[in-house]
Amino acid sequence: MNGICTDLYQLTMAQGYWKNGLADREAVFYHTFRKNPHDGGFTVFCGLSSLIDFFDDFGFSKEDIEYLADLEGGDGKKIFDRDFLKYLLELRFTCDIDSVVEGTPVFPFTPILRIRGPLIQCQILETPVLNILNHQTLIATKASRICLAAGSQDVLEFGFRRAHGPDGALSCSRAAYIGGCSATSNVNAGKKYGIPVSGTMAHSWVMMFGSEIEAFESYAEISGDSYVLLVDTYDTINGVRNAVHVARKMAFKGKELKAIRLDSGDIASLSIESRKILDHAGLKKTKIIASNDLDEYVINDIKKAGAPVDAWGVGTKLVTSSGHSALDGVYKLSAICKESGSFDLKMKLSNQPFKNSLPGILQTRRFFSGAGYLADIVYDDTTFVDSKNMAAFFFDGSGMLDIDKAYGSDELLKNIYSRGQRTYSLPGINYTRKYARDELERLSAGIKNIYDPEIYTIGIEKNLMFFRNSLAASLKNL
Amino acid sequence: MNGICTDLYQLTMAQGYWKNGLADREAVFYHTFRKNPHDGGFTVFCGLSSLIDFFDDFGFSKEDIEYLADLEGGDGKKIFDRDFLKYLLELRFTCDIDSVVEGTPVFPFTPILRIRGPLIQCQILETPVLNILNHQTLIATKASRICLAAGSQDVLEFGFRRAHGPDGALSCSRAAYIGGCSATSNVNAGKKYGIPVSGTMAHSWVMMFGSEIEAFESYAEISGDSYVLLVDTYDTINGVRNAVHVARKMAFKGKELKAIRLDSGDIASLSIESRKILDHAGLKKTKIIASNDLDEYVINDIKKAGAPVDAWGVGTKLVTSSGHSALDGVYKLSAICKESGSFDLKMKLSNQPFKNSLPGILQTRRFFSGAGYLADIVYDDTTFVDSKNMAAFFFDGSGMLDIDKAYGSDELLKNIYSRGQRTYSLPGINYTRKYARDELERLSAGIKNIYDPEIYTIGIEKNLMFFRNSLAASLKNL
Repeated sequence: MNGICTDLYQLTMAQGYWKNGLADREAVFYHTFRKNPHDGGFTVFCGLSSLIDFFDDFGFSKEDIEYLADLEGGDGKKIFDRDFLKYLLELRFTCDIDSVVEGTPVFPFTPILRIRGPLIQCQILETPVLNILNHQTLIATKASRICLAAGSQDVLEFGFRRAHGPDGALSCSRAAYIGGCSATSNVNAGKKYGIPVSGTMAHSWVMMFGSEIEAFESYAEISGDSYVLLVDTYDTINGVRNAVHVARKMAFKGKELKAIRLDSGDIASLSIESRKILDHAGLKKTKIIASNDLDEYVINDIKKAGAPVDAWGVGTKLVTSSGHSALDGVYKLSAICKESGSFDLKMKLSNQPFKNSLPGILQTRRFFSGAGYLADIVYDDTTFVDSKNMAAFFFDGSGMLDIDKAYGSDELLKNIYSRGQRTYSLPGINYTRKYARDELERLSAGIKNIYDPEIYTIGIEKNLMFFRNSLAASLKNL
Repeated sequence: MNGICTDLYQLTMAQGYWKNGLADREAVFYHTFRKNPHDGGFTVFCGLSSLIDFFDDFGFSKEDIEYLADLEGGDGKKIFDRDFLKYLLELRFTCDIDSVVEGTPVFPFTPILRIRGPLIQCQILETPVLNILNHQTLIATKASRICLAAGSQDVLEFGFRRAHGPDGALSCSRAAYIGGCSATSNVNAGKKYGIPVSGTMAHSWVMMFGSEIEAFESYAEISGDSYVLLVDTYDTINGVRNAVHVARKMAFKGKELKAIRLDSGDIASLSIESRKILDHAGLKKTKIIASNDLDEYVINDIKKAGAPVDAWGVGTKLVTSSGHSALDGVYKLSAICKESGSFDLKMKLSNQPFKNSLPGILQTRRFFSGAGYLADIVYDDTTFVDSKNMAAFFFDGSGMLDIDKAYGSDELLKNIYSRGQRTYSLPGINYTRKYARDELERLSAGIKNIYDPEIYTIGIEKNLMFFRNSLAASLKNL
């Protein structure tokens, strides 16, 4: 039971709706965002699986209700009525959910999740929907960017120690794996999600022994057929020489120095020098793993410098999405069922028109040519008339496009729940990870540039644009 | 049971220690950090209470052990030996913990937590210690900076929707409250930690009704004696006028417009104009709450512009510590007990000497004059000889200081556990919050500057400095 995992105002508004007889009025909200993280060209949708866990556990426990019953407002009076709390206690999840599938690249202003159901439920669920999807989508996107910079090389997620609590670390590991990381250091994430776990050794191991050589030998002894040595506890290049010394000795015991790890200093020059020392010693198969405050920009620079790094350990900047620490996801009311049964479409205005929300029961149609994605057009189910071509406005209103339906297309929001019953069966995490990688392949290369990416085409279907403009005009005269 | 909440390499190293007969060797590690967040002058220590919950639950469940038993390395062989896993299954927390008390301002390079006990436990606990303390200390520090910028005005934490999962949101709310926030929007945090909860209304409420006036009236009706109205759903200044209209009408029903909330646009000019409209209507007591991507810098600028804002709702930038998204906390081995019973002091070297760790069983002595804090001197229990004055080097080695013991002093690390038994009774969160505020009062004003703060004096006690230098020299010759 997790209904209490929400913002207080959702519950006070819920009580207000309940008092006004609006509690069970059918409403439609959608979740979108306004900016790709890190000025990038795309965003990787993630978090649906965790959100499904949340929906499946939705409700208020007796203990939650008791807590709420005691809450007082500034005026010293109880905030919640007993009858309303009784209503909450009996509340069950009965909404329709339509969502993008995890691992799909998504773009600003398009709906990524739509919820339709009793107004009170839609309202209370705003906070967890935003919390879970904003966070995991942000981290999956960051991971994806880092993996693109690393190219064909493995990226290992080592971020547990800088994540937001043990549970924050779990969801980071999950999103990072879907975004393309090969493994996590987080054992609990490995157990919970079936993600491969990985690790090397820490400086403390080296410090425990009388000398670095002794520490390395001892580590090789207790390892299986192969081992990885961390070489920068005292002096990196000297550490590489010590690793070579130990590798030669241990080769006689059938143990192979699989890799060395560089965790400080100038990775580019240190890896070049280390590679020479390893090669000179005949350890051509020994790989070099780099870590230390890496992200897509640093990896890009290190690779540009010709550094012979084979794998990357990434932590802090991945799990905190350093430089762009939050997805600016928002959740907006877009339609409300009238007593007649038809829908009243709703929108929020802003002084900045691009922030005006979209009215309607929204859906996104993605067009593609062959395998490559072309454009996403948002439309409203209640005003859209499907015809030969799809006419739309560019999102910024700068012009129109007309897409021939000869192109392939797909609706991005898939039904996940119908009246509270799950209709979607979740794929395994490995399927989702591969799907995410395949999906990225369908974007043109320029969209995936780390710097100054191409802008993917997003549009608003013609009828939706007309309706939105007229609704905005009428609201301004309110 | 949470032992599995750690990095894989902690467990593989643990197995190595166990194989080498070092499992129960007494070790000493310490947690420190190198940089105050946001180029600030101080850091607020936070997270100890959550860490205590972790220590109290430490251990491995059978299910965890089964998971570990199945793990295979790159060579296809099982990573963990059955006998080692049996050892893990029986492992209980038996360490000494000495820690700074929550809410205390702390400074780079000084130990903020020390753990002493069987090597394996110290090693496995590295990850959760860093995870929990790095995160909550970061957020408490950010909150503290924001509250300093807000001065005597309330700061409300509204960050749930941008935090790292529902549990990440919980720990953010806790740390933000200790850092000085007055309340949280997170109902679950209110219930779990006894933090005051607060909230206003959302745009969706306004959008549910035929007009803004109707929505405002309806909200006032369902509220208690006073209510807060969000005025920017369609047009801010028009929203303020509508709020005034409703306030006048509702005054006849004994209901007071306690505040309006501005959530978009230029807060400085909008608040000035709103204040005029409210005052002109005789609503001098109606307050103005501002929100929308606020942090200490934005609040500072808005206040400088003379904006009559009375309270601040802060979310995204607080709970993600935007601009400095991780505390760079590290955890280092500093001493290991020899078979003789005396301690071998340990340190890690770096090409950047300021990153060299400190050897010893470390403690920090904080000197004060009257109520004001003067300096923190780190010393090692095994080499320190207490005398009339305390001689120390500035941390960067730039010179010496000699502190008269006539000044008051206090040892910052307090005993929390002795051989796994808790010796410290946790104060309530309201005590800790007040303590944190009182402690900040003891820092000179310059240290609390948002920009270019004064640098607080930190030093290394003379004998520790001498020992460290000679140890570093001998390690370089390894």
